[in-house]
Amino acid sequence: MNSLYNRRTIRKYQQREVAPELLTKLFEAAFRASTCGNMQTYSVVVTRSAAGKQRLAPAHFHQPMVTEAPVVLTFCIDLRRFSTWCKLRKADPGYNNFEWFVTGAVDTLLAAQTFCVAAEEQGLGICYLGTTTYNPEQIIEALQLPELVFPLTTITLGWPDEQPEQTDRLPLEAILHDEVYHDYSSADIDRLYAAKEALEENHRFVAENGVETLAQVYTNIRYTREAAEAMSAKLWDIMKQQGF
Amino acid sequence: MNSLYNRRTIRKYQQREVAPELLTKLFEAAFRASTCGNMQTYSVVVTRSAAGKQRLAPAHFHQPMVTEAPVVLTFCIDLRRFSTWCKLRKADPGYNNFEWFVTGAVDTLLAAQTFCVAAEEQGLGICYLGTTTYNPEQIIEALQLPELVFPLTTITLGWPDEQPEQTDRLPLEAILHDEVYHDYSSADIDRLYAAKEALEENHRFVAENGVETLAQVYTNIRYTREAAEAMSAKLWDIMKQQGF
Repeated sequence: MNSLYNRRTIRKYQQREVAPELLTKLFEAAFRASTCGNMQTYSVVVTRSAAGKQRLAPAHFHQPMVTEAPVVLTFCIDLRRFSTWCKLRKADPGYNNFEWFVTGAVDTLLAAQTFCVAAEEQGLGICYLGTTTYNPEQIIEALQLPELVFPLTTITLGWPDEQPEQTDRLPLEAILHDEVYHDYSSADIDRLYAAKEALEENHRFVAENGVETLAQVYTNIRYTREAAEAMSAKLWDIMKQQGF
Repeated sequence: MNSLYNRRTIRKYQQREVAPELLTKLFEAAFRASTCGNMQTYSVVVTRSAAGKQRLAPAHFHQPMVTEAPVVLTFCIDLRRFSTWCKLRKADPGYNNFEWFVTGAVDTLLAAQTFCVAAEEQGLGICYLGTTTYNPEQIIEALQLPELVFPLTTITLGWPDEQPEQTDRLPLEAILHDEVYHDYSSADIDRLYAAKEALEENHRFVAENGVETLAQVYTNIRYTREAAEAMSAKLWDIMKQQGF
């Protein structure tokens, strides 16, 4: 369990390959994760070539990890393989809809996270790229993803070349609800966010961004309503375009 | 890594409690998982009471694990806590949309799967309940989930009282794509599904269900188009109703 407690996201990697045998071992662990009906409704595109990383970079806003990591893995919801199998076996697959987009997302993320846990246990470092759902159309083009395949998350992988501080987390009581959901009072929020708001680095964030509160760093700068609404519309359109 | 390779889903549990201290340890590991912008956009409702399990049982089609497991965990996308914090800090949260439903789903599932990996390493057994997205409205009612909270997956947890055979998995080459997506030819499908189709238990499934192919067990019986389309419409409605 130690690697689970001590983990931190790694964005800088040594110029050192990840051996193909090790990658294989990690994928074998990942694909033992729970999967709905044993359907394994996911695919992983493995990018190791410099040209491939360059094609992905714009979709991820040119974050340096994409071109600097030895391995980039795009985890995709994939109802295509299963549907193709059905069609070739006199069966009519009904998996081109929202329910299976969500079920496929569950499958995909359990495999992705199991991969990461296994990788970190071996001393590797990973970084999830949330940008995957911001620009899915660019990733679809770069990786030539056909209908019923959707890029959900991306992981950069390599041997760590940094040891950043561990980031904070909310106290357990902020996340856990006993038997039923207990809504948050103003006093609850004050108590649960107090440690986060007191962090030196968060005071710096607020000052650097010229805002009044840490929450405004999120709402005004990092994750604005305007951007979220534009991305929501696009995400829905691309999901439909991919046949879901 | 051994517990990752040797895992199997466990549906029968000993009549033996999971110690609260152990649960706390597992949650601490789970919530170290990667999370978008360190926002932790999830909540977990912990059900241990008999009455609480009874309330959840119908939503999960009365699968016996729900009432027999010592612990049932409902992992929910939660943009409510973060949005409440924003509102109390003079910030306008724009997280009531599809983009944040999906981003919240990623956060939620990375935490859920890290919990499961940690639990299995400690010798516990888990079962994911895909039924969570079939009847979300019943779970929302049972757990009193307010706006911007959505039940995404459920885990039953306990000390194993069975040791089932490991289920098969597709060969790695079925899942992995080198640099770009390689679509599946008829010959590919034949090769990749050959081992699965040859399994004794799958022959039995086909015979018992009076169908011609294993794929038809899925499309005609287990996961039909009609059911998926009805669930898709409902899932979308409930997502909207919860404010996304």
